[in-house]
This record gives sequence, structure tokens and C-alpha cells, in this order.
Amino acid sequence: MRIDVVQGPNLNLLGARQPEHYGAATLDAIHAAMRRLAEELSTAEDCVELTFFQSNHEGELIDRLQAMASEVDAFILNAAGYTHTSVALRDALIASGRPAVEVHLSNVHAREPFRHRSLLADVAKGSIVGLGARGYLLALRALVEELRGVQLLS
Amino acid sequence: MRIDVVQGPNLNLLGARQPEHYGAATLDAIHAAMRRLAEELSTAEDCVELTFFQSNHEGELIDRLQAMASEVDAFILNAAGYTHTSVALRDALIASGRPAVEVHLSNVHAREPFRHRSLLADVAKGSIVGLGARGYLLALRALVEELRGVQLLS
Amino acid sequence: MRIDVVQGPNLNLLGARQPEHYGAATLDAIHAAMRRLAEELSTAEDCVELTFFQSNHEGELIDRLQAMASEVDAFILNAAGYTHTSVALRDALIASGRPAVEVHLSNVHAREPFRHRSLLADVAKGSIVGLGARGYLLALRALVEELRGVQLLS
Amino acid sequence: MRIDVVQGPNLNLLGARQPEHYGAATLDAIHAAMRRLAEELSTAEDCVELTFFQSNHEGELIDRLQAMASEVDAFILNAAGYTHTSVALRDALIASGRPAVEVHLSNVHAREPFRHRSLLADVAKGSIVGLGARGYLLALRALVEELRGVQLLS
Amino acid sequence: MRIDVVQGPNLNLLGARQPEHYGAATLDAIHAAMRRLAEELSTAEDCVELTFFQSNHEGELIDRLQAMASEVDAFILNAAGYTHTSVALRDALIASGRPAVEVHLSNVHAREPFRHRSLLADVAKGSIVGLGARGYLLALRALVEELRGVQLLS
Amino acid sequence: MRIDVVQGPNLNLLGARQPEHYGAATLDAIHAAMRRLAEELSTAEDCVELTFFQSNHEGELIDRLQAMASEVDAFILNAAGYTHTSVALRDALIASGRPAVEVHLSNVHAREPFRHRSLLADVAKGSIVGLGARGYLLALRALVEELRGVQLLS
Amino acid sequence: MRIDVVQGPNLNLLGARQPEHYGAATLDAIHAAMRRLAEELSTAEDCVELTFFQSNHEGELIDRLQAMASEVDAFILNAAGYTHTSVALRDALIASGRPAVEVHLSNVHAREPFRHRSLLADVAKGSIVGLGARGYLLALRALVEELRGVQLLS
Amino acid sequence: MRIDVVQGPNLNLLGARQPEHYGAATLDAIHAAMRRLAEELSTAEDCVELTFFQSNHEGELIDRLQAMASEVDAFILNAAGYTHTSVALRDALIASGRPAVEVHLSNVHAREPFRHRSLLADVAKGSIVGLGARGYLLALRALVEELRGVQLLS
Amino acid sequence: MRIDVVQGPNLNLLGARQPEHYGAATLDAIHAAMRRLAEELSTAEDCVELTFFQSNHEGELIDRLQAMASEVDAFILNAAGYTHTSVALRDALIASGRPAVEVHLSNVHAREPFRHRSLLADVAKGSIVGLGARGYLLALRALVEELRGVQLLS
Amino acid sequence: MRIDVVQGPNLNLLGARQPEHYGAATLDAIHAAMRRLAEELSTAEDCVELTFFQSNHEGELIDRLQAMASEVDAFILNAAGYTHTSVALRDALIASGRPAVEVHLSNVHAREPFRHRSLLADVAKGSIVGLGARGYLLALRALVEELRGVQLLS
Amino acid sequence: MRIDVVQGPNLNLLGARQPEHYGAATLDAIHAAMRRLAEELSTAEDCVELTFFQSNHEGELIDRLQAMASEVDAFILNAAGYTHTSVALRDALIASGRPAVEVHLSNVHAREPFRHRSLLADVAKGSIVGLGARGYLLALRALVEELRGVQLLS
Amino acid sequence: MRIDVVQGPNLNLLGARQPEHYGAATLDAIHAAMRRLAEELSTAEDCVELTFFQSNHEGELIDRLQAMASEVDAFILNAAGYTHTSVALRDALIASGRPAVEVHLSNVHAREPFRHRSLLADVAKGSIVGLGARGYLLALRALVEELRGVQLLS
Repeated sequence: MRIDVVQGPNLNLLGARQPEHYGAATLDAIHAAMRRLAEELSTAEDCVELTFFQSNHEGELIDRLQAMASEVDAFILNAAGYTHTSVALRDALIASGRPAVEVHLSNVHAREPFRHRSLLADVAKGSIVGLGARGYLLALRALVEELRGVQLLS
Repeated sequence: MRIDVVQGPNLNLLGARQPEHYGAATLDAIHAAMRRLAEELSTAEDCVELTFFQSNHEGELIDRLQAMASEVDAFILNAAGYTHTSVALRDALIASGRPAVEVHLSNVHAREPFRHRSLLADVAKGSIVGLGARGYLLALRALVEELRGVQLLS
Repeated sequence: MRIDVVQGPNLNLLGARQPEHYGAATLDAIHAAMRRLAEELSTAEDCVELTFFQSNHEGELIDRLQAMASEVDAFILNAAGYTHTSVALRDALIASGRPAVEVHLSNVHAREPFRHRSLLADVAKGSIVGLGARGYLLALRALVEELRGVQLLS
Repeated sequence: MRIDVVQGPNLNLLGARQPEHYGAATLDAIHAAMRRLAEELSTAEDCVELTFFQSNHEGELIDRLQAMASEVDAFILNAAGYTHTSVALRDALIASGRPAVEVHLSNVHAREPFRHRSLLADVAKGSIVGLGARGYLLALRALVEELRGVQLLS
Repeated sequence: MRIDVVQGPNLNLLGARQPEHYGAATLDAIHAAMRRLAEELSTAEDCVELTFFQSNHEGELIDRLQAMASEVDAFILNAAGYTHTSVALRDALIASGRPAVEVHLSNVHAREPFRHRSLLADVAKGSIVGLGARGYLLALRALVEELRGVQLLS
Repeated sequence: MRIDVVQGPNLNLLGARQPEHYGAATLDAIHAAMRRLAEELSTAEDCVELTFFQSNHEGELIDRLQAMASEVDAFILNAAGYTHTSVALRDALIASGRPAVEVHLSNVHAREPFRHRSLLADVAKGSIVGLGARGYLLALRALVEELRGVQLLS
Repeated sequence: MRIDVVQGPNLNLLGARQPEHYGAATLDAIHAAMRRLAEELSTAEDCVELTFFQSNHEGELIDRLQAMASEVDAFILNAAGYTHTSVALRDALIASGRPAVEVHLSNVHAREPFRHRSLLADVAKGSIVGLGARGYLLALRALVEELRGVQLLS
Repeated sequence: MRIDVVQGPNLNLLGARQPEHYGAATLDAIHAAMRRLAEELSTAEDCVELTFFQSNHEGELIDRLQAMASEVDAFILNAAGYTHTSVALRDALIASGRPAVEVHLSNVHAREPFRHRSLLADVAKGSIVGLGARGYLLALRALVEELRGVQLLS
Repeated sequence: MRIDVVQGPNLNLLGARQPEHYGAATLDAIHAAMRRLAEELSTAEDCVELTFFQSNHEGELIDRLQAMASEVDAFILNAAGYTHTSVALRDALIASGRPAVEVHLSNVHAREPFRHRSLLADVAKGSIVGLGARGYLLALRALVEELRGVQLLS
Repeated sequence: MRIDVVQGPNLNLLGARQPEHYGAATLDAIHAAMRRLAEELSTAEDCVELTFFQSNHEGELIDRLQAMASEVDAFILNAAGYTHTSVALRDALIASGRPAVEVHLSNVHAREPFRHRSLLADVAKGSIVGLGARGYLLALRALVEELRGVQLLS
Repeated sequence: MRIDVVQGPNLNLLGARQPEHYGAATLDAIHAAMRRLAEELSTAEDCVELTFFQSNHEGELIDRLQAMASEVDAFILNAAGYTHTSVALRDALIASGRPAVEVHLSNVHAREPFRHRSLLADVAKGSIVGLGARGYLLALRALVEELRGVQLLS
Repeated sequence: MRIDVVQGPNLNLLGARQPEHYGAATLDAIHAAMRRLAEELSTAEDCVELTFFQSNHEGELIDRLQAMASEVDAFILNAAGYTHTSVALRDALIASGRPAVEVHLSNVHAREPFRHRSLLADVAKGSIVGLGARGYLLALRALVEELRGVQLLS
């Protein structure tokens, strides 16, 4: 099972700037934590592999979604500022044909009105908002269980 | 550690009706799964206790938030149809002074426009949307880790 | 054949107050007239039974729709003030899986702008507006004929 | 007692096209059913006479309302596509000084947003929406009873 | 000098209906008064000729503007209900290349909001609103003086 | 003279929570102060009696207005969160036929935009906003003087 | 018969500036032409007297309407830029209790959108727009005939 | 303790015009009643002094607020028509640094939509609307008690 | 193969008026050019036949679409001013069940805002805008190739 | 004669994905068909040369328009998702000073509302929408004829 | 070269109040600094003369622009609160025929939404916003260089 | 002291194209003029150094702001077309923690409505609009004086 983690503009700055707003964890630290969780969720028959990508360029994010669509089973996507403005990214996500979970570190609903509209939310499977870096781990867990068909009931 | 799970109108019907839309799990099954996860997350020193409440009455949901505010550490809240219309519920949540995670089973952003506006999202800590019944488990995990001050980095 | 007549907030006041606006008939009188028509429409093989419910509480109206969904063939619904504001009631009506005819005594289109929007109209089968208490009788007749598959042509 | 039934654009196609949407009844069949009901409602002293008119031309519909205003006691009006755009037809209806019941075959509230606004609804006495061809019969019954001053209570 | 007076839908009813709203003068009486003023304004060298047209049909009003464009020097136009909805009439007026004065008997600004927007006002030379039948006489006087190049100053 | 004081959702929490926002006075303290003022305003012939009611349930507030309409001369009403969303409460207030003064403790105009719209303000006699608990005393004084026909001039 | 002509901001510049837009006539020339027409319209028993006022100050225009309300039979008012923004001037016009005709030299409907809204149009008797300085003469004629009860028909 | 009462445009007409709308009391009578109440509220150590100002000029109202800001403890302000349009007056009120209570005689929420927006309400301490001339007395009482730190509880 | 070319209001004026805007070609010349292209595209087995219709009347355009629906394989439609306002024409086009290509001579997106909305565009197969009279030839070529199933690839 | 064909984001995926939506032709196949048509349209004196460019990067599309502006006679442009959001691309197209025809494969008017607004449509010469890959061939033919000054009339 | 500096409402309070918001400089200090810069920019042949005006009255600001239009070469204008509401001031600025630079001390774009709209910005030559008192000096420098035709390139 | 000058899309074309709109100065010429002014403003202890960057790529502009944030004291930023659409660039500017002055060559307020909204204006320190290339020099002067703490008063 492979999942690509796609990070949008300015997320490379995590930890170094405005920690009171976005948390103290750097992007590397978040990715390391995700890798540890992937190992923990891996089984003998089903290894969970993660790949990571960050770019400030809308076009590179689209290229990435296109390139990885046939390589991975799902995406975890935080398009940051492009979330609210990019029809092209939305089209790339639809074209990928892969389920995606949208993650936002901060509670976008408690910020400026133009951050309340997402062009990705309705074409993603779901979204996790405002739970900080932990949101990525929850998204990973959700996708792995979903792809494995894990049932809630027993 | 105590967390109250507050379920809004029509969620008592889960499983019995429209399973293609809301999933096959009944509300009881979801709560049982949450209880199992709570046990799993409990430690010797820190038992995770859950309480549950469902009502179709806006006023009873407000009463519940008021009554439990001093009893619990956090809320998991799916206000269903009241999410989009209830200023009174919003006020009760603010007054409770407790962190809450908002959960929606279906992807509300992919449904009617009047479901895109939430009167609770910006006063909750965060939200998990469109990930089905699994969203409740993720919310529980997130709150427990958050309240315990679990760090992502190690 | 069973039909439940669900009456929303303030309709218990009919006749006693503002007769120039809502007519002189009390709710009891309207229900009596409906019962007479039901008898008239009943046949040996197919008795038309009516049940009635009125509440000022949004939650009780939702409870009613849920409770009667498996008991009746259809609803006649006048949600009064909740018509324009209740997503929760809309969800209950959808969940009931029963056809409903929406009735309004006064011509809501000729009143305040916030009464022009109905959250129920598009999920009901149809609506009868502005024809006074007679609207209930028309709704009853329409549902009985519809459920019996009466054809217009002969 | 005379009532004029005024049918707007494209209603001449009823039955022949899109029966899944507008029903299988032709306009002639609907009018025949109305005529039968009129006979049934007629009494020795008070014969209910119907006249019918259909046009795709906004101007001819206005001419009709003007010409029949002094000939009839009421109108049954389905202005179809002109419902949402014609201030001129609205003015003609007001000028006629006659009560009118607006009928729509399909549930316009469940269709495109531009069909939600009616320029006639607030100047008509009332409206019957989404109940198919049966709506015309209900409108006829309502107008006859109303004009005869039939009381609901007894 | 020739001026065509073009009257829109329902104006043929003037005087006969709703005199409290539109005045007691019939359209014929208004046209007669305009003819008397035209004679009064006529000089030996410059006879003021008027032609009149009324229709409830948008298409006939367009035909008229097209047909008379090369016959007359100006239009006096009261498009009534089509004022607020007809792009086609607007295009016909532009295409005529003739100056027009728009007249409205009642004060449209004090009526329903959809009467506040005119699709003709900005392509007409000017408009006279709310001054009753007198508005036509003022429009005639204005156009005659304008076309003759009468100066205000002396 | 009897006046009913109707308090909406979350007002039972006054004093205990967020005193910096809503003041330190509990609802009981406010009601006690109102009772003292009522005594002060009472005369031998005209005793001012107050009754009090608080509920978090929209339906109970409607029931209260209905039940007390024939018992009291006026209402003092703080519908809190329902102020902005309840058409049903508005209808109940209109149906009561009693004058009401709307009170808000905080300055709703300085808060979120959805608090700027009141569905009650235009059907109440007037409103007192932002003057804290003192607003209730002013409302009481205003209603007593108004009902007694006290003239400002002397 | 007395009529006050009230001219708003920047109209003192007429003729001197932007003649291609507002015409070559100065305000004095327009007033002189109005005075000549007033004489022409005067009869032995009924002399038409005009008074004139221009100010760039909203407050002075309000003062003027107040001061002249009991002195004159009607107003001719061109509030220029205040037309679109002054609720206070609107209130003063209503308070005056006098009929007024609103005049605009240019066709405000063909200019910026914020000039399409008039706060005076619906409380004036009527308006004459886009007919240049001639509009004032038409307004004068209309008011004199109206006040004298001149009938169009003979 | 000094309080300045600032009255906006057209309020000088009170009593003389439209008494059915604004009441029969003149501005002088209202001010006299306020002065009597001020005396009543005065104590040996703390005399309540009132000053009064009315103007139809937006600029003079701004000048007044500026001039009195250092002279008084609070303002009672009825900006009338400027309430809805004056950013400059809002700025002057903020700059004054003094608490103000906004008063409106009529229920502005029950009038035209452009009267629903107040540019002053959110920067005033609070507002009293629709309670007629009595609103001024309530505002005075509220400010005096507030400035003296009178507690509701005892 | 038969295609009906339906031309809306004012298009009969093409060439004669405003050639700088709509081009110098008359409607006859355009139709002649279309006929030449139809011949060119015709083959021995598959003759391309064109019929033409122009009207200024909305109703006649609807009549035409109805009458030709069973006679032709497709429509080329320029509804001109009715494009933006006619729900009735939209309904007629849907009812026809035929593919249509919408043509506009001028670039409607570069003109007034009310021309940006088309009530036909989403129910037509596609549209060609701003390419002058050539747009009709392109539409013809597109429909012939489409109906013949001509593939782009070889 | 040279024309540059500029293809926006996700168009490199054509044919491979969602053929039911965008057709089965790959971008290469479309370009090959365009090249064949260009040859067919070429004459001895006037060879039609095409160049092609596709990018997912908004900036590269801008670079391309800048670079080719002095090399080509016209553009055929399908900006895909950037059509609705890119002011920068609009500016680049204006700056190029070249005529452009906008092409969209699918009928954007029948899709999400945010696809109805084009920031390019009004600065392009015209647009061809919803006619699939054939739209590119029509655009090519239109530009070649336009640039050659081919007349429709003969 | 003469430039008039026109200061709007409440700017006379600069320095004395809210220095944290508008800076510590008084209006006199700002004007003194401008005068020093004017001397510095003056040359033997071309002396830069400044005049200053402040008023809280919209009408006086209009009077000033009218009076100085023929006396000066340009305006520096800070209309403060009138910026957002005064069509009359806009008209006066247009009528002056002089270039103007609009200055705002604070960043109006970071304040209330109603401050984002300027009725002057599009008819001024340009604007300098948010740079404090320094904005006036920059505006002065810009106008002097512009009027002298100083070229940037050398 | 170091300041980075960041130029957005299409600004590399300055001077070569549309000089009537954007001026005749090339970007190089503007930068040269800025460098001369920087030298002039430099002192022995405080040299003003400038760096320059232009890109048509949104992502490269974000990269630049990130890279230079720790290298410079301030930014001068003209984001051109991205000004109105880029939330990502806004986030990068906030994250940089550096003061920025926004410059626009043309008066964006006098152009298309979508240019009136800036996503950068409220997070920049201030903006200079419509003053041509000179705006860059003013911005430089403003930032140098601001950073040096130069006082206006002396």
C-alpha cells in the first residue's frame, strides 16, 4: 500500500516561523512521525509505504498528482493557500482517480472568509481540519484502514 | 479523562436507513467501537471514560452541553442538521469552555449549499468530515492525545 | 391506507387568533373535516385512516416523523415557521422515505422574503399553498388517489 | 360559474415528450378529466363551465387574460416558463381582478434555481405544485368550493 | 416631424381598470390629448405628426420599432412590464438609431423591487416617471423642442 | 398589571460563566432586581406583577408565549440565540398580540454578522441592546409607563 | 401658487464646466427660463411664483426643505450627488408633506451603478431624467397643471 | 456628571409633523422631561448636568462631538438619517472616547431595509430603539447609573 | 440530414444596421453561404439540407422548435436577446430532444453583464461566440461531422 | 501564417483518463489532426504553420504567450482550470496583442458554477465551447480564414 | 506651482487622540513638514506653494474643491470618512479638472469592510495608503515631479 | 539596510508594450532609477542595498519571499495579476515577517472590478497606486525613512 503526502505552499516553513499559529513541528518532523506510524501499521503482507512532496508551485503540485496517480493508492493533501483558489489542482485531483484526505493544520473556518471556501473539499473523500500536525497521522490511519476494508464493528 | 459524545437529530436512525449514504453501522455499533478504542487508549493512571447522548431536540442538546461542561474534559459533537442553523447550540458550546471536535459522517461539502456553512466549525477545536463512522474514532484518538499532551516528535 | 397529519408551531392557535389571516377554522375543525373526507374516500377494501399530531417543538416533530415512518403510507405536513429554517426536519423527512405533501394556509409567497425559501419543498412530493384549510383536504385527496394509482384518463 | 384554464408554453407537448418528467397524460386528456369533474361538481342551479386556452406566446396569454377577465369567475393558470420571467403576465393577472390558482406539474422547487422564483405566486390566490396533472383537478375543486362559499365546518 | 408612440402590455386597459392606480384616462383619451398638443406645437413649416401603436406582444413591439425606425424622428415608449425583462426590446431600440423618451404612468421606484431595474432606461435619451398621463405630453413637448433645436436661453 | 419575562437559551448560565462578557449577575439576581423595581413601581391601585421563565428549548419558549398571552399585559423577551434563527418564535410573538420589549445583554451589533439580523426586532415594540442586566430594568420601566399611559410632558 | 426649486451640490458649476456632459446652460440661465415659463403659465387669478436655492451642503438642503415646507405648494428638486446617499434628505422631503418632482440633467441610468439607486425617487411624486435643462421646465409645467387640477381629457 | 444630548437631522420637527409616527412630543418637551429626570437623579455630591444640541448638518454634529468630548462624561445620540450613512460621524464618536447610548424613536427594524444598518451601533455602548421619547429618559437613567457604578444586586 | 437554422429577434436587421458591430453581411447572405457549405458537405448518400427561420417573437421561436423537432436532426440557434431571459425557449429546446449549437455573432462576454448569463448554453451541445457570421459555418460543419460520426483520428 | 496552440493544466492527460467526459482522443492525436488540417488549408503562397505547447504551470503558460507573441499571428488557447482564476494569464494575453480563440472541450456552462466565469473570454476574439476536440479544428479554420480576410459572401 | 491640501473630517484631531492608530503628529506638524519639503523642492523658477484646508463638513470640502480648482495645479486629498460615502465630493473632484493624489494615514484595507470601497480612488490620479503622515510628503513629491515632467530615466 | 524588489507576472514586458497604459519605462530603467535613489539615500554608516527579482511564476515569487525573508529588511512588491488571486502569496508575505509596500503602476481602482480586491493590501504595511514608475521610488523612500526611524517633525 502506497500513499503520497502532498504539501502545498509555505508548508516548508513549518516550525521555523509562527509556531504559535502552526505548531512547533517542522515538516521533516511531521513526516518522520508519519513514517513511524506507517511502520507501526504495516504488517507482513501489507507494508505501508509513504512518499513525500512539497512545493510552492501550483504547477508542480499538479505534476505530482499526475505522476503519482498510477503509483499510489491514495493521497494525503494539504494544498494550503491553493486550496481556496485552484480549479486546476481540483481537476488534477479528480483526474487522479485516487481517494484523498484533505488536511489543514489550523482551523480555516476560524480565519478569513476567503479561507472558508475550498475547491478541493467536495472532490476529496473527506477532510481533517484544525487538529494540528496530528491531523496527518489521523488521515494516514483513516486511509490505511479504509483501503484495508477494516470494519468498525466486531 | 472523560469525553462526552453528543449526537444530533436523526443520528438515531443510523444503519437502519440509507446505509448507502451514512454507512451500515448503527449508532450503538459506533459507540461500542468507541468504547473499545477508549479501553485500548486507557492506561493504569489514566482511564478514558466515555458518555453518550443523542437527541432530536435542539434544546436537549443545549441542556446536555451545559450539564456535562463541568463533568467532562472534552466533547465529540455531531450536531447533524443543527450544525447549519443553531446559534443557540454555538453559544452553548462556547459557554461550555471545553474543546470539541466536530464530526460529520458524510462529506457535507459535496452536498447542498446550505450544508457548507457551519455555525460550530469556528468555535470547535477542529473537524473531521466525510470519513464515515471512522471519524468518531479519529476524533477520540485526537482528543485523548491532545489532552495528554502527547508530542508528535520523539 | 394510513396518513399522518403533522402540524407545526403555532397551528394549535388556529381560529382563536388572527382569523382574518389564517381563517376561522380551529385545528380541531380542520381535522374533523379531514376525517369526514377520509371516510368518504374509504372503500370496503381500502379504509383511509388518519392520525394527527401538533407540536411547537422542532424535536418533537422530528421524533414524530421518525416514529410514524414505518406506520404510515404518507405525510401531510405543515411545518409552519420551521419550514424556512429546519435542516433537521428536512433530514427527518428524507429519512422517512415516505411521500409528503406540504400545506401552507396562507400564501407564503405574498409575505416576508424569509418565508419564500422552504427547506422542505424540494424533498416533499409537492405543495399546496394559500388555499386555506381547504388545502389539507386537497392534499388528502391527492395522496389517496396517488397511493391508489388512480388514473386521470378513462 | 365559469373558469378559464390558461396553459403556457410547451404544455401542448404534454404526454408526447418526456413522460417520465411531466407524466403520460396529454393536455387534451387533462382537459377532458377537468370537464368530467366540472360536470360532477355542477348542480342544477350552478353549472360549472370550463374554457381552455394554450399558447406558446406571452402576448397571447396576456390577451387571453384580458379578454376573459369579464367572462369568467376565476382562472386556473400554468404559465410554465413565463412564470419566472414575465412581469407583463403578472400585470395582466392583477388587472383581471379575478382569483387565480397557479398550477405546476413538476416540483419546481426541486429543479434549477431560476425556477424557484415565481412572478405570479404572490398575486395568485394560491398554488399547487408537483402533484402532476392531478393538480389541475384540485385547483378546479378548490375554486368551485371557494366561489360557492362552501364551509369546511359543519 | 414624426413621432411614434409605442405602448406596451396591458396599457390597452387604461381607464377601465384600477383607475386609482393608473388614472381615469383611457389610452384613446391620452392619445387624443397628445394629438391636440401635437397640433398646438405644429407650425406652418413643421407639422408634428403622431402615430400610435399598442400591443401585448413583445415580438410585435420589436417589429414596430424596426418598421418605424426609418419612418419617424423619435419614439415615445412605455414598454410597461417588458421594461424590466426584455433584452430583445432593448436591442431593437438601439438598432432603431432613434432617440426615445421612456414614460411610466406610475412611480415604478415606489413599487416592487423588480420594477426598479429598467433594461431600456440607459439606452433611451431620458425618462419621465410617475407623472401620470401627463408624462406623455411632457415627453412629446421635450422631443419636439429637442428635435427643433429650441434653446432654453434667450 | 402583569408582565412575563421570557429568557432564551444559555441565559441560565449567567454570572457563572464568561462574566467579562455577560456580566457577573446571575439570572436570579437580575430577576430579584426586577422584582424590587416592580414593587417600587407598584401603586395601591396598580400592582406590577412579574413572572419569569427560562428555557433552552425553542418549543418551550413558543409554548410559554402562547400560554401567557392571555395572562399578561406584555412581555420582556431575550430570545438569545433563537433571536437570529426562529421564524416560529416570531410567529408566536405576533400571535400573542402583546407588546414586547426585546432585551440583549451584550451589544449584538458589535459581534458576528449573523447576530446583526433579528427575526423579532420588527415585531417587538422596541429593543434595548448592549446595556447589560440594566436593560431588563429599563424595559420594565418602559412597559409599565407605556401601559399606564404616563405622559412625558407636564 | 409657489414652487421652490432646490438645487444640490456642484450644480452651481453648470455651464462653466463639462458642458459636453451637463449642457452649456448656467444655473442662472436655467432659472431665468423657468421664470419666463412661470410668467407664461400665470393667470390673473393664479400667479406662479418661483424661489430658488442652491447649496453644496446636505444640511442646508435639509434646512431649506424644512423652512419652505409651509411656504410653498411643491418642490422641484435636483439633489445631485446626495440623491444616492442621503437618508436625511429623504426624511426631510417626507416631513415636508409637499409633492416634489425630481429632476436629473444627465441620464443617471447610463452612468456608474451607484447612481442607479435613488433614495428620493420613491418618496417624490415622480422624476424626469436625462432631458437636460429642459427637464426643469417640464417639471414646472407638470406641477402647475397638477396643482390646478388641469384635466387631460376634454 | 455631564451628559451631552446630540440630536440629528429633522428631529427639530418633532411634534409638529407626523405625530402618528414620531409621537406628539416636541424636542423641547423631550428635553424638558430629561432635565426633570436629571434633577431627580442628582444628589448633593453628584449633580447631573445636561446639554443639548440639534443640527441638520452632518459636519456640525461632528464638530459637536469633538468639542464636547473633553467636557462631558457621556453622549446620548440620535443621529437620525445620518445613522445609516455617516462613516465620518462614526469616526468622531470613536475619537471622542466617551460612552454613548444610541436612541431611535421609531422601530427602525420595522422600516425600510436601508434603516436596518447602523454605522454607529457597534461603536456605541448600546442602543434603545422603538420606545418613543421615553427612550431618551431610559438612556439617561442607564448612563447615570453606569457612570456611578450602581450595582443591580444588593 | 436536415438542420434547422433558427434566428432570434433583430437578426433580420443584419448588415443594414450597425455593421461595425455585427458585420456587413445580411442574414440572407449568411444563409446563402451556409447553403453553399451544405452543398459542399453533401455526398451522394447523405445530402445536407438546411431550413431557415427568423422571428422577433419569442412564441414563434418556440413554435418553430416544436414544429421542427421531428423534422430535423439538429438545430443551429441564435436566440439573440431571448438567450438571456427566456426559460420558455429553454424548455422548448430541451423538449425538442435535438442537439443544438448556439451561435452568437458578437462576443457577448465583452458586453453588458446581463448578456453573460445564457439560459440556453447548458442545454445546448455547445456554443460558438464572437466569431461573426463565420460562426454559423463552423456550427454547420461541426454538426454535420458530429452526426456523421466523423473521427478526428486516423 | 503561424498559430500557436497553448494547452493548459491536465490537458496532457486527454484520452488516457475520463474519456467519457473529455473524449478518447489524446492531445497528440488532436495536434496531429490539427496539423493535417493546417496542411489542407495551406496554399503555395501561404503555408499554415502550427506550434504546440502544454503546461500545468500558470507561469509557463504566461512565459509562452510572451515568447510567442512576436512569432505568431494568433493563438488557440485552452487554459483549462486557469481560465476561471488567472488574472495574470489574462494580462499576458492582452499584452500579446494577438487575436486568440478560446477552446473548451466540455460544455463548461453545464458544469460547476465556478466554471461559468471566464477571465479570458472577453479579451479573446471569441470562444468555441462544448464541441469536443473538433473545437480546435474549428478554431484553426476560423483563424486562418479571418487572417486571410476570406469573405463569406460571393 | 500651487497645490491645495484638503483634509476631511476628524483629521483636526490628529496627534491629540488615538496616536497609536493615527500617529503622534498633529495636523499642524504634518503641514509644517510639507511646507519644509515644498521649500526644498522649490527652485528659482518654480516655487512650490501649498495651501491647507480642513473641515468636518462635506459641503465645505466641496466648496473648497470648487473654489481652488482654478487657483491650483493639483490637490492632495484625504477625505477621511467621506471617502466611502460621498458621491457629491466625487463629483466636485471630477468637476475640478485637477489631478489629485488621495492619501490615507492608516491602512484602510485592513479595517472594516465599508472602508474598502472608495468613491474617490478611481477618479483620483492615484493613492498612497497606510504609510502614515509620510504619505503626504510622498504625495507632494509625486505631484511636483509629475507636474514638472521629471523623467525617471536618465 | 537591504530591500528586495519583487516584480510579478508580465512586468518584464514594461516599456516594450502598451506604453500608453503602463508608461514608457522598461523594468531595467525603473530598477536603475531605484538604484540611483538608493545611492542618494545611502550614508556612510547606512548603505541602502537593493536586490531585484521578476517572475511570471506564482511559485517562484513565493520561493523568493521565503528565501529573502532573512536577508532583507523589507520588500517592495508588485504582484501584478497575482495580487487579486493568490492566497499562497499572501501567506508567504505574512510568513516573511517583513514590512512590505505594495506598488501598482496603473490605478487599479479605475479598472475591472476583479482588480479592486487585493489579497495583499491588508497584510502589507501600505500601498502606492496609480503613480506610475514613480511609485517605486516613493516606496523606497518611505521604507528607508521608516526603517531609519526618521521623524517628520523637527
